[in-house]
Amino acid sequence: MKHLLAIDGLSRDEIEAILDRAESFAEVGRRDIKKVPTLRGRTVVTLFYESSTRTSSSFELAAKRLSADLVSVKAAGSSVDKGESLKDTVATLSAYDPAAIVIRHPYAGAAQMVAGWTAAAVINAGDGKHEHPSQALLDVYTLRRRLGSLDGKRIWIVGDVLHSRVARSNLIAFQRMGAEVTVCGPPTLIPRGIEELGCEVSHSLERLGEADVVYALRMQQERMSESFVPSLREYAATFQIDTRRLNPRQLLMHPGPVNRGVELSGEAIDSPQSLIAEQVAAGLVVRMAILYELLAGSERPAPVSDDEPSPTPIGQPA
Amino acid sequence: MKHLLAIDGLSRDEIEAILDRAESFAEVGRRDIKKVPTLRGRTVVTLFYESSTRTSSSFELAAKRLSADLVSVKAAGSSVDKGESLKDTVATLSAYDPAAIVIRHPYAGAAQMVAGWTAAAVINAGDGKHEHPSQALLDVYTLRRRLGSLDGKRIWIVGDVLHSRVARSNLIAFQRMGAEVTVCGPPTLIPRGIEELGCEVSHSLERLGEADVVYALRMQQERMSESFVPSLREYAATFQIDTRRLNPRQLLMHPGPVNRGVELSGEAIDSPQSLIAEQVAAGLVVRMAILYELLAGSERPAPVSDDEPSPTPIGQPA
Amino acid sequence: MKHLLAIDGLSRDEIEAILDRAESFAEVGRRDIKKVPTLRGRTVVTLFYESSTRTSSSFELAAKRLSADLVSVKAAGSSVDKGESLKDTVATLSAYDPAAIVIRHPYAGAAQMVAGWTAAAVINAGDGKHEHPSQALLDVYTLRRRLGSLDGKRIWIVGDVLHSRVARSNLIAFQRMGAEVTVCGPPTLIPRGIEELGCEVSHSLERLGEADVVYALRMQQERMSESFVPSLREYAATFQIDTRRLNPRQLLMHPGPVNRGVELSGEAIDSPQSLIAEQVAAGLVVRMAILYELLAGSERPAPVSDDEPSPTPIGQPA
Repeated sequence: MKHLLAIDGLSRDEIEAILDRAESFAEVGRRDIKKVPTLRGRTVVTLFYESSTRTSSSFELAAKRLSADLVSVKAAGSSVDKGESLKDTVATLSAYDPAAIVIRHPYAGAAQMVAGWTAAAVINAGDGKHEHPSQALLDVYTLRRRLGSLDGKRIWIVGDVLHSRVARSNLIAFQRMGAEVTVCGPPTLIPRGIEELGCEVSHSLERLGEADVVYALRMQQERMSESFVPSLREYAATFQIDTRRLNPRQLLMHPGPVNRGVELSGEAIDSPQSLIAEQVAAGLVVRMAILYELLAGSERPAPVSDDEPSPTPIGQPA
Repeated sequence: MKHLLAIDGLSRDEIEAILDRAESFAEVGRRDIKKVPTLRGRTVVTLFYESSTRTSSSFELAAKRLSADLVSVKAAGSSVDKGESLKDTVATLSAYDPAAIVIRHPYAGAAQMVAGWTAAAVINAGDGKHEHPSQALLDVYTLRRRLGSLDGKRIWIVGDVLHSRVARSNLIAFQRMGAEVTVCGPPTLIPRGIEELGCEVSHSLERLGEADVVYALRMQQERMSESFVPSLREYAATFQIDTRRLNPRQLLMHPGPVNRGVELSGEAIDSPQSLIAEQVAAGLVVRMAILYELLAGSERPAPVSDDEPSPTPIGQPA
Repeated sequence: MKHLLAIDGLSRDEIEAILDRAESFAEVGRRDIKKVPTLRGRTVVTLFYESSTRTSSSFELAAKRLSADLVSVKAAGSSVDKGESLKDTVATLSAYDPAAIVIRHPYAGAAQMVAGWTAAAVINAGDGKHEHPSQALLDVYTLRRRLGSLDGKRIWIVGDVLHSRVARSNLIAFQRMGAEVTVCGPPTLIPRGIEELGCEVSHSLERLGEADVVYALRMQQERMSESFVPSLREYAATFQIDTRRLNPRQLLMHPGPVNRGVELSGEAIDSPQSLIAEQVAAGLVVRMAILYELLAGSERPAPVSDDEPSPTPIGQPA
């Protein structure tokens, strides 16, 4: 693996390797010194053309815990000629010889393009409506920890599937790990022909009880003005996941940030069934694992925490 | 001490302990390598819902000088349902298992709420009109260095006391350290019943000569539109601290940033009586001390600078 | 050298010393661990009153690769009394006892003023239309690597010379290194009397073939509304550097960011003659060299990479 551009290109074995690596970082995270020297003296660039707190802070802290130097660029998209300006920006940042560039961009395919312009490893942190592979990996990680395996599990992805790169990446990842996926939402928010990806489609929550896992998507305000749904209130009446609709053996997930009272009720968010906080914690260790696999995976042994006697030879940095 | 939410809950001994620790960090700051390894591999989150250069840069540099990894989140407050969104943001950041969360928020009581939602130590960096305890501690530190002790000293706090969390925290802190406090300003800017806190009230600068220390508050432009004062010009005519009103043995303080020519004249700011630069320098070492006391106070020995032979065993990080 | 405020004050020997140091950092940049401990435990402040991605990220990464702690302040200029607020901001930041302050400010002379207010070394990262010395140094470095020496080389600086601090600093630096400089652009964009600086002036690209190096300047949109040029399209028709106007033995430079299709054609940017990516890479090592020369030049030996056995005595940080 040179880049992480999409879940679509990953085999089950490659996914499992990243999850196993993430487990080892979770162990590091329980130590007093939550840091490893793996990427010391190497540079990680984060380049975000869309706002983000969760994904960017998670990648940035992951890079720091691997001891990398971080260059963080938040770029507001310019209105013209985005492709070109992205190319020049990538050329500029590549001149620093970074080990990795983590990119979020509103255009589907942007990460793929960047990978053609730089010698750095490229990590897609979300490209338009296309993919968000690190989100899918952290979600699979979260479920594997809870369920042992996803094989034969039934997962419902509920909400605005049409506009969601998370839905797309997770649908692929969940299926590759052996789960059966149903996507659910009003017809205006389900892409036509999505059954061809091997999932089922439902336009109501009636059969939600069949699900082992309910994965709710973020409903965005701007969808209303575009007439995809009559109002958020009506959407919530029909598709909100609340504790009446959930049964106690079901697990609840959401990629965040949640619109409380829209796609999820406050009670559901705070219920013991909710894995939302675990997903965020998983985000950190899975992103450490992604950086590790891409940048140090083949060349180095398993990570060693700084708070243990270091096996590095004298004269090398610990 | 688990959190630092308010000066109100601190005893004189607890305040003195923080100031003593800050002294030891001031000593580190005079060395060539101004850094200690105390928080290596631990994470400090700064979460600022109001803009700030001084307080945020001070906490961030304090965390770096203690070798912590920093996650810095600047959040513009959303217009609705702030309580809930704050809760979710804190849940997200807590998933990284930070050692401390430093929070500034426009709502009084926000830091207290956050402390109920996270396992991290919470430091209040300003909550609405309520408290700003690290400011009070750095001000007491600055005065203690100059005066030896605050016992019996007379301190005038001048300006917009009504809207100032600094006034509130400092009034409490100065009194706890033995000083006698007078608050001074136009009646519209002094909270009713403030005498019950044990201070005196004055509505003119006539008796300013009695003060050992004059602590001027920042006057905010928006107060005018709310008709608290007729104009900044009139306010300045009556309450501006200038070198005519100050006498040479008085000390001058201000929490910054100063409106030159409003609450202070330029000459007063730049006079040798002004402690403003010392306050900022104190901010750094006092915030290092706060982080140290909360995160390492009981478990570890006094800080050791990295430029001295380290007492840590071989194989551990220095 | 205490500060780097302008190219104007530097001798050829001083320039050469910085370039030689930059060469040694380029060598560090080819190692696995691209980091040296020179500024460990010291603080570098970047204070940018104008937006910048390239210059700020370059200085910030340079500081990190020297192991400094970084305080990064992005300040939007306030509309009134800028001089005063700058003074107070510098006083605040100086209270942290930084080793260096890197300042960009829209007022010519701002860096010089800052140098009068702080004990830190001051680096001018661009002050109004005055100077941008680190840009000139990185450009000279880039050319010296390609050409061996600038002596007798003919360099054309093309475009909006009037508003460009880069033009001014580079004109001085190129001449000091022995090159012959021609400035070229429409009469409205060439300052009157610039010949007194020893350069030639041209108002057309006819004789561009004489140049060994073509240095194109960024054309700014706002110039049009000010009627310096009738339109960017007309400007491009007359002054755009494209592959028809360039001959294959000429080198092409630009300080970035480029307006593709205005001052340069896309083809020219991506041609093998273009040194633009090399300029950015040079920016990093030259800024490391500037920080090193100002902060550690006289007191310390040549930099040692962390991935080599360290010559520092036991007990000192590596």
